[in-house]
Amino acid sequence: MRVSELSRVTGVPVATIKYYLREGLLPSGELSPPNRARYGDAHAHRVALIRSLTDVGGMSIADVRTVLQVIDTPGIPIHDVLGATVQAITAARPGAGTGGEQRDAARMVDDLIARRGWQVHRTNPSRAIAEDVLARLDRLGQQRVIEALDAYAAAADLIAEADLAVVAAVEGRDARAETAVLGTLLGDVLIAALRRLAQEHISAKQFPPPTE
Amino acid sequence: MRVSELSRVTGVPVATIKYYLREGLLPSGELSPPNRARYGDAHAHRVALIRSLTDVGGMSIADVRTVLQVIDTPGIPIHDVLGATVQAITAARPGAGTGGEQRDAARMVDDLIARRGWQVHRTNPSRAIAEDVLARLDRLGQQRVIEALDAYAAAADLIAEADLAVVAAVEGRDARAETAVLGTLLGDVLIAALRRLAQEHISAKQFPPPTE
Repeated sequence: MRVSELSRVTGVPVATIKYYLREGLLPSGELSPPNRARYGDAHAHRVALIRSLTDVGGMSIADVRTVLQVIDTPGIPIHDVLGATVQAITAARPGAGTGGEQRDAARMVDDLIARRGWQVHRTNPSRAIAEDVLARLDRLGQQRVIEALDAYAAAADLIAEADLAVVAAVEGRDARAETAVLGTLLGDVLIAALRRLAQEHISAKQFPPPTE
Repeated sequence: MRVSELSRVTGVPVATIKYYLREGLLPSGELSPPNRARYGDAHAHRVALIRSLTDVGGMSIADVRTVLQVIDTPGIPIHDVLGATVQAITAARPGAGTGGEQRDAARMVDDLIARRGWQVHRTNPSRAIAEDVLARLDRLGQQRVIEALDAYAAAADLIAEADLAVVAAVEGRDARAETAVLGTLLGDVLIAALRRLAQEHISAKQFPPPTE
Protein backbone atom coordinates (compact mmCIF):
# COMPACT_ATOMS: atom_id res chain seq x y z
CA MET A 1 0.00 0.00 0.00
CA ARG A 2 0.99 3.64 -0.45
CA VAL A 3 1.65 5.93 2.51
CA SER A 4 -1.84 7.44 2.06
CA GLU A 5 -3.44 4.02 2.55
CA LEU A 6 -1.15 3.24 5.49
CA SER A 7 -2.45 6.49 6.99
CA ARG A 8 -6.07 5.47 6.38
CA VAL A 9 -5.62 1.93 7.76
CA THR A 10 -3.87 3.09 10.92
CA GLY A 11 -5.76 6.36 11.45
CA VAL A 12 -2.43 8.18 11.80
CA PRO A 13 -1.78 11.31 9.65
CA VAL A 14 0.69 11.00 6.74
CA ALA A 15 2.89 13.71 8.26
CA THR A 16 3.18 11.68 11.49
CA ILE A 17 4.04 8.51 9.56
CA LYS A 18 6.78 10.42 7.71
CA TYR A 19 8.05 11.65 11.05
CA TYR A 20 8.25 8.06 12.34
CA LEU A 21 10.15 7.12 9.14
CA ARG A 22 12.63 9.99 9.60
CA GLU A 23 13.11 9.11 13.27
CA GLY A 24 13.85 5.50 12.35
CA LEU A 25 10.90 4.08 14.34
CA LEU A 26 9.37 2.69 11.15
CA PRO A 27 11.45 0.85 8.52
CA SER A 28 11.40 2.32 5.01
CA GLY A 29 8.87 1.02 2.52
CA GLU A 30 9.91 -1.01 -0.51
CA LEU A 31 10.70 1.31 -3.42
CA SER A 32 8.67 0.43 -6.49
CA PRO A 33 8.14 2.17 -9.84
CA PRO A 34 7.27 4.95 -10.35
CA ASN A 35 9.72 5.45 -7.49
CA ARG A 36 7.15 5.48 -4.68
CA ALA A 37 7.52 3.58 -1.46
CA ARG A 38 5.09 0.74 -0.76
CA TYR A 39 4.21 -0.45 2.71
CA GLY A 40 2.90 -3.75 4.05
CA ASP A 41 0.97 -5.12 7.05
CA ALA A 42 4.17 -5.14 9.09
CA HIS A 43 4.31 -1.35 8.74
CA ALA A 44 0.66 -0.97 9.81
CA HIS A 45 1.40 -3.19 12.81
CA ARG A 46 4.46 -1.17 13.73
CA VAL A 47 2.51 2.12 13.52
CA ALA A 48 -0.18 0.70 15.86
CA LEU A 49 2.57 -0.44 18.23
CA ILE A 50 4.18 3.02 18.28
CA ARG A 51 0.80 4.68 18.93
CA SER A 52 0.04 2.33 21.80
CA LEU A 53 3.37 3.11 23.44
CA THR A 54 2.92 6.89 23.04
CA ASP A 55 -0.85 7.31 23.50
CA VAL A 56 -1.51 4.69 26.18
CA GLY A 57 1.96 4.16 27.65
CA GLY A 58 2.68 7.90 27.67
CA MET A 59 6.18 7.30 26.29
CA SER A 60 8.27 9.89 24.46
CA ILE A 61 9.45 9.20 20.90
CA ALA A 62 13.00 8.83 22.25
CA ASP A 63 11.87 6.16 24.72
CA VAL A 64 9.85 4.39 22.03
CA ARG A 65 13.01 4.26 19.90
CA THR A 66 14.92 2.64 22.77
CA VAL A 67 12.22 0.03 23.30
CA LEU A 68 11.93 -0.76 19.58
CA GLN A 69 15.70 -1.14 19.33
CA VAL A 70 15.57 -3.69 22.14
CA ILE A 71 12.74 -5.58 20.39
CA ASP A 72 14.54 -5.41 17.03
CA THR A 73 17.96 -6.52 18.29
CA PRO A 74 18.31 -10.27 17.80
CA GLY A 75 20.00 -12.26 20.53
CA ILE A 76 18.99 -10.18 23.55
CA PRO A 77 17.70 -12.73 26.07
CA ILE A 78 14.00 -12.28 26.79
CA HIS A 79 14.71 -11.65 30.48
CA ASP A 80 16.75 -8.58 29.48
CA VAL A 81 14.02 -7.22 27.17
CA LEU A 82 11.78 -6.63 30.16
CA GLY A 83 14.65 -4.98 32.03
CA ALA A 84 15.51 -2.66 29.14
CA THR A 85 11.89 -1.62 28.67
CA VAL A 86 11.47 -0.77 32.30
CA GLN A 87 14.67 1.28 32.15
CA ALA A 88 13.32 3.24 29.17
CA ILE A 89 10.12 4.15 31.03
CA THR A 90 11.88 4.87 34.28
CA ALA A 91 14.34 7.41 32.90
CA ALA A 92 11.44 9.78 32.21
CA ARG A 93 10.47 10.11 35.88
CA PRO A 94 11.88 13.02 37.85
CA GLY A 95 14.17 11.92 40.64
CA ALA A 96 13.07 11.89 44.23
CA GLY A 97 14.38 14.13 46.93
CA THR A 98 16.75 12.96 49.62
CA GLY A 99 16.59 13.01 53.38
CA GLY A 100 15.18 11.02 56.23
CA GLU A 101 11.99 9.93 54.47
CA GLN A 102 14.10 8.64 51.58
CA ARG A 103 16.25 6.46 53.85
CA ASP A 104 13.17 5.13 55.66
CA ALA A 105 11.57 4.39 52.29
CA ALA A 106 14.67 2.53 51.05
CA ARG A 107 14.56 0.33 54.14
CA MET A 108 10.83 -0.27 53.68
CA VAL A 109 11.42 -1.49 50.12
CA ASP A 110 14.37 -3.69 51.17
CA ASP A 111 12.28 -5.22 53.97
CA LEU A 112 9.34 -5.81 51.64
CA ILE A 113 11.55 -7.53 49.05
CA ALA A 114 12.99 -9.75 51.80
CA ARG A 115 9.51 -10.59 53.18
CA ARG A 116 8.28 -11.61 49.75
CA GLY A 117 11.47 -13.52 48.91
CA TRP A 118 11.93 -11.58 45.68
CA GLN A 119 15.35 -11.97 44.07
CA VAL A 120 15.87 -8.59 42.38
CA HIS A 121 18.98 -6.66 41.43
CA ARG A 122 20.05 -3.55 43.32
CA THR A 123 19.92 -1.72 39.96
CA ASN A 124 16.26 -2.51 39.16
CA PRO A 125 14.92 1.03 38.60
CA SER A 126 11.55 0.11 40.11
CA ARG A 127 13.20 0.04 43.54
CA ALA A 128 13.88 3.77 43.25
CA ILE A 129 10.33 4.44 42.02
CA ALA A 130 8.79 2.52 44.92
CA GLU A 131 11.09 4.37 47.33
CA ASP A 132 10.14 7.73 45.82
CA VAL A 133 6.42 7.05 46.16
CA LEU A 134 6.77 5.78 49.74
CA ALA A 135 8.90 8.80 50.74
CA ARG A 136 6.28 11.16 49.31
CA LEU A 137 3.43 9.33 51.05
CA ASP A 138 5.39 9.52 54.31
CA ARG A 139 5.99 13.23 53.86
CA LEU A 140 2.30 13.80 53.11
CA GLY A 141 1.25 11.97 56.27
CA GLN A 142 -0.28 9.04 54.38
CA GLN A 143 0.86 6.31 56.78
CA ARG A 144 -2.36 4.35 56.18
CA VAL A 145 -1.54 4.00 52.49
CA ILE A 146 1.98 2.84 53.39
CA GLU A 147 0.44 0.18 55.65
CA ALA A 148 -1.27 -1.28 52.56
CA LEU A 149 2.15 -1.99 51.00
CA ASP A 150 2.03 -5.74 51.67
CA ALA A 151 -1.47 -6.02 50.20
CA TYR A 152 -0.31 -4.18 47.07
CA ALA A 153 2.79 -6.40 46.82
CA ALA A 154 0.69 -9.56 47.09
CA ALA A 155 -1.51 -8.29 44.25
CA ALA A 156 1.62 -7.37 42.24
CA ASP A 157 2.85 -10.95 42.64
CA LEU A 158 -0.42 -12.31 41.21
CA ILE A 159 -0.20 -9.86 38.30
CA ALA A 160 3.44 -10.73 37.56
CA GLU A 161 2.64 -14.45 37.62
CA ALA A 162 -0.10 -13.85 35.03
CA ASP A 163 2.35 -11.68 33.03
CA LEU A 164 5.02 -14.34 32.83
CA ALA A 165 2.48 -17.05 31.98
CA VAL A 166 1.38 -14.84 29.06
CA VAL A 167 4.96 -14.35 27.84
CA ALA A 168 5.73 -18.07 28.17
CA ALA A 169 2.63 -18.96 26.12
CA VAL A 170 3.80 -16.84 23.17
CA GLU A 171 6.04 -18.59 20.62
CA GLY A 172 9.20 -17.02 19.24
CA ARG A 173 11.64 -14.55 20.73
CA ASP A 174 10.48 -11.42 18.83
CA ALA A 175 6.79 -12.02 19.54
CA ARG A 176 7.65 -12.67 23.19
CA ALA A 177 9.59 -9.42 23.39
CA GLU A 178 6.67 -7.47 21.94
CA THR A 179 4.24 -9.18 24.31
CA ALA A 180 6.45 -8.36 27.29
CA VAL A 181 6.60 -4.70 26.31
CA LEU A 182 2.91 -4.30 25.45
CA GLY A 183 1.66 -6.46 28.29
CA THR A 184 3.65 -4.44 30.80
CA LEU A 185 2.93 -0.93 29.51
CA LEU A 186 -0.68 -1.34 28.38
CA GLY A 187 -1.20 -3.71 31.29
CA ASP A 188 -0.39 -0.92 33.77
CA VAL A 189 -3.15 1.22 32.28
CA LEU A 190 -5.58 -1.71 32.10
CA ILE A 191 -4.94 -2.69 35.73
CA ALA A 192 -5.34 0.94 36.87
CA ALA A 193 -8.70 1.08 35.04
CA LEU A 194 -9.86 -2.23 36.56
CA ARG A 195 -8.76 -0.97 39.97
CA ARG A 196 -11.01 2.10 39.59
CA LEU A 197 -13.98 -0.02 38.47
CA ALA A 198 -13.51 -2.25 41.53
CA GLN A 199 -13.08 0.85 43.72
CA GLU A 200 -16.41 2.26 42.55
CA HIS A 201 -18.13 -1.02 43.36
CA ILE A 202 -16.60 -1.36 46.84
CA SER A 203 -16.86 2.37 47.60
CA ALA A 204 -20.61 2.43 46.83
CA LYS A 205 -21.11 -0.40 49.33
CA GLN A 206 -18.87 1.13 51.99
CA PHE A 207 -19.89 4.79 51.61
CA PRO A 208 -23.45 4.63 50.27
CA PRO A 209 -24.46 7.97 48.69
CA PRO A 210 -27.03 9.89 50.76
CA THR A 211 -30.58 9.00 49.70
CA GLU A 212 -32.57 11.97 48.40
CA MET B 1 7.88 31.33 57.13
CA ARG B 2 8.73 33.53 54.16
CA VAL B 3 8.38 32.27 50.60
CA SER B 4 12.17 31.69 50.48
CA GLU B 5 11.94 29.30 53.42
CA LEU B 6 8.87 27.59 51.96
CA SER B 7 11.02 27.02 48.87
CA ARG B 8 13.87 25.57 50.95
CA VAL B 9 11.58 23.30 53.00
CA THR B 10 9.76 21.91 49.96
CA GLY B 11 12.67 21.89 47.49
CA VAL B 12 10.49 23.77 44.99
CA PRO B 13 11.85 26.99 43.39
CA VAL B 14 10.33 30.31 44.51
CA ALA B 15 9.22 31.08 40.94
CA THR B 16 7.25 27.79 40.85
CA ILE B 17 5.63 28.52 44.21
CA LYS B 18 4.59 31.96 42.92
CA TYR B 19 3.15 30.26 39.85
CA TYR B 20 1.08 27.93 42.07
CA LEU B 21 -0.14 31.02 44.00
CA ARG B 22 -1.14 32.82 40.77
CA GLU B 23 -2.89 29.70 39.48
CA GLY B 24 -4.87 29.39 42.71
CA LEU B 25 -3.45 25.95 43.59
CA LEU B 26 -1.92 27.34 46.77
CA PRO B 27 -3.81 29.71 49.11
CA SER B 28 -2.23 33.09 49.74
CA GLY B 29 0.01 33.52 52.75
CA GLU B 30 -0.95 35.68 55.70
CA LEU B 31 0.09 39.29 55.12
CA SER B 32 2.23 40.59 57.95
CA PRO B 33 4.31 43.73 58.37
CA PRO B 34 6.41 44.83 56.63
CA ASN B 35 3.79 43.74 54.10
CA ARG B 36 5.30 40.36 53.29
CA ALA B 37 3.33 37.14 53.07
CA ARG B 38 4.03 34.45 55.64
CA TYR B 39 3.35 30.78 55.04
CA GLY B 40 2.72 27.87 57.37
CA ASP B 41 3.01 24.08 57.44
CA ALA B 42 -0.29 23.79 55.56
CA HIS B 43 1.33 25.58 52.63
CA ALA B 44 4.35 23.26 52.68
CA HIS B 45 1.99 20.30 52.75
CA ARG B 46 -0.02 21.65 49.83
CA VAL B 47 3.16 22.20 47.76
CA ALA B 48 4.25 18.60 48.41
CA LEU B 49 0.77 17.42 47.40
CA ILE B 50 0.88 19.39 44.14
CA ARG B 51 4.35 18.03 43.32
CA SER B 52 3.24 14.45 43.95
CA LEU B 53 0.28 14.86 41.60
CA THR B 54 2.42 16.42 38.84
CA ASP B 55 5.73 14.57 39.22
CA VAL B 56 4.49 11.10 40.15
CA GLY B 57 0.89 11.18 38.92
CA GLY B 58 1.90 12.93 35.67
CA MET B 59 -1.04 15.34 35.99
CA SER B 60 -1.27 18.73 34.29
CA ILE B 61 -1.67 21.89 36.38
CA ALA B 62 -5.24 22.19 35.07
CA ASP B 63 -6.07 18.65 36.26
CA VAL B 64 -4.39 19.32 39.62
CA ARG B 65 -6.61 22.38 40.02
CA THR B 66 -9.71 20.24 39.37
CA VAL B 67 -8.65 17.64 41.92
CA LEU B 68 -7.78 20.26 44.55
CA GLN B 69 -11.14 21.96 44.03
CA VAL B 70 -12.85 18.63 44.71
CA ILE B 71 -10.79 18.13 47.87
CA ASP B 72 -11.40 21.72 49.00
CA THR B 73 -15.15 21.75 48.39
CA PRO B 74 -16.95 20.88 51.63
CA GLY B 75 -19.95 18.62 51.39
CA ILE B 76 -18.96 16.50 48.41
CA PRO B 77 -19.61 12.90 49.52
CA ILE B 78 -16.41 10.86 49.74
CA HIS B 79 -17.69 8.41 47.13
CA ASP B 80 -17.87 11.29 44.62
CA VAL B 81 -14.35 12.53 45.40
CA LEU B 82 -12.92 9.31 43.97
CA GLY B 83 -15.13 9.65 40.90
CA ALA B 84 -14.16 13.28 40.29
CA THR B 85 -10.47 12.48 40.61
CA VAL B 86 -10.66 9.65 38.14
CA GLN B 87 -12.49 11.94 35.72
CA ALA B 88 -9.72 14.52 35.99
CA ILE B 89 -7.04 11.97 35.13
CA THR B 90 -9.06 10.34 32.41
CA ALA B 91 -9.74 13.47 30.40
CA ALA B 92 -6.04 13.69 29.59
CA ARG B 93 -6.00 10.40 27.66
CA PRO B 94 -6.48 10.54 23.90
CA GLY B 95 -9.65 8.82 22.76
CA ALA B 96 -9.61 5.39 21.23
CA GLY B 97 -10.51 4.61 17.66
CA THR B 98 -13.73 2.98 16.64
CA GLY B 99 -14.54 -0.14 14.69
CA GLY B 100 -14.90 -3.86 15.21
CA GLU B 101 -12.16 -4.22 17.82
CA GLN B 102 -13.81 -1.41 19.81
CA ARG B 103 -17.19 -3.16 19.88
CA ASP B 104 -15.57 -6.48 20.84
CA ALA B 105 -13.65 -4.70 23.59
CA ALA B 106 -16.81 -3.04 24.95
CA ARG B 107 -18.47 -6.46 25.18
CA MET B 108 -15.39 -7.92 26.88
CA VAL B 109 -15.52 -5.22 29.56
CA ASP B 110 -19.28 -5.64 30.05
CA ASP B 111 -18.85 -9.41 30.41
CA LEU B 112 -15.97 -8.99 32.83
CA ILE B 113 -17.96 -6.57 35.00
CA ALA B 114 -20.87 -9.04 35.03
CA ARG B 115 -18.59 -12.00 35.90
CA ARG B 116 -17.08 -10.09 38.83
CA GLY B 117 -20.46 -8.77 40.00
CA TRP B 118 -19.18 -5.18 39.96
CA GLN B 119 -21.89 -2.52 40.24
CA VAL B 120 -20.45 0.36 38.22
CA HIS B 121 -22.04 3.23 36.33
CA ARG B 122 -22.09 3.31 32.53
CA THR B 123 -20.34 6.68 32.79
CA ASN B 124 -17.33 5.47 34.79
CA PRO B 125 -14.48 6.69 32.53
CA SER B 126 -12.36 3.65 33.37
CA ARG B 127 -14.70 1.53 31.24
CA ALA B 128 -13.58 3.46 28.15
CA ILE B 129 -9.93 3.19 29.15
CA ALA B 130 -10.17 -0.58 29.62
CA GLU B 131 -11.97 -0.86 26.28
CA ASP B 132 -9.31 1.24 24.54
CA VAL B 133 -6.48 -0.89 25.90
CA LEU B 134 -8.24 -4.16 24.99
CA ALA B 135 -9.03 -2.91 21.46
CA ARG B 136 -5.38 -1.99 20.94
CA LEU B 137 -4.16 -5.34 22.28
CA ASP B 138 -6.60 -7.08 19.94
CA ARG B 139 -5.40 -5.06 16.98
CA LEU B 140 -1.78 -5.83 17.85
CA GLY B 141 -2.47 -9.56 17.99
CA GLN B 142 -1.93 -9.78 21.75
CA GLN B 143 -4.72 -12.30 22.48
CA ARG B 144 -2.63 -13.94 25.19
CA VAL B 145 -2.55 -10.70 27.16
CA ILE B 146 -6.32 -10.34 26.76
CA GLU B 147 -6.72 -13.85 28.17
CA ALA B 148 -5.08 -12.62 31.39
CA LEU B 149 -7.95 -10.13 31.90
CA ASP B 150 -9.64 -12.16 34.65
CA ALA B 151 -6.36 -12.58 36.52
CA TYR B 152 -5.77 -8.82 36.35
CA ALA B 153 -9.35 -8.11 37.49
CA ALA B 154 -8.96 -10.44 40.48
CA ALA B 155 -5.78 -8.59 41.46
CA ALA B 156 -7.58 -5.25 40.94
CA ASP B 157 -10.29 -6.39 43.35
CA LEU B 158 -7.69 -7.16 46.04
CA ILE B 159 -6.07 -3.76 45.47
CA ALA B 160 -9.41 -1.91 45.63
CA GLU B 161 -10.34 -3.71 48.86
CA ALA B 162 -7.05 -2.56 50.40
CA ASP B 163 -7.71 0.97 49.02
CA LEU B 164 -11.12 1.28 50.62
CA ALA B 165 -9.87 -0.15 53.91
CA VAL B 166 -7.23 2.59 53.90
CA VAL B 167 -9.79 5.33 53.21
CA ALA B 168 -12.14 3.98 55.88
CA ALA B 169 -9.32 3.97 58.46
CA VAL B 170 -8.68 7.70 57.96
CA GLU B 171 -10.71 10.10 60.13
CA GLY B 172 -12.41 13.18 58.72
CA ARG B 173 -13.80 13.98 55.32
CA ASP B 174 -10.95 16.21 54.03
CA ALA B 175 -8.22 13.79 55.12
CA ARG B 176 -10.19 10.94 53.53
CA ALA B 177 -10.50 12.84 50.27
CA GLU B 178 -6.76 13.50 50.18
CA THR B 179 -6.01 9.86 50.98
CA ALA B 180 -8.34 8.69 48.21
CA VAL B 181 -6.62 10.95 45.67
CA LEU B 182 -3.04 10.20 46.75
CA GLY B 183 -3.62 6.51 47.37
CA THR B 184 -5.12 6.08 43.92
CA LEU B 185 -2.64 8.17 41.91
CA LEU B 186 0.58 7.38 43.74
CA GLY B 187 -0.73 3.85 44.31
CA ASP B 188 -0.87 3.24 40.54
CA VAL B 189 2.82 4.08 40.27
CA LEU B 190 3.69 2.07 43.39
CA ILE B 191 1.80 -0.99 42.16
CA ALA B 192 3.41 -0.73 38.70
CA ALA B 193 6.84 -0.63 40.39
CA LEU B 194 6.03 -3.63 42.62
CA ARG B 195 4.74 -5.48 39.54
CA ARG B 196 8.12 -4.98 37.82
CA LEU B 197 10.05 -6.15 40.88
CA ALA B 198 7.90 -9.29 41.03
CA GLN B 199 8.30 -9.72 37.25
CA GLU B 200 12.09 -9.68 37.56
CA HIS B 201 11.96 -12.33 40.26
CA ILE B 202 9.60 -14.64 38.36
CA SER B 203 11.24 -13.96 34.97
CA ALA B 204 14.69 -14.93 36.29
CA LYS B 205 13.26 -18.26 37.46
CA GLN B 206 11.33 -18.87 34.23
CA PHE B 207 13.89 -17.63 31.71
CA PRO B 208 17.23 -18.12 33.46
CA PRO B 209 19.95 -16.02 31.79
CA PRO B 210 22.46 -18.13 29.82
CA THR B 211 25.42 -19.13 31.99
CA GLU B 212 28.76 -17.83 30.71
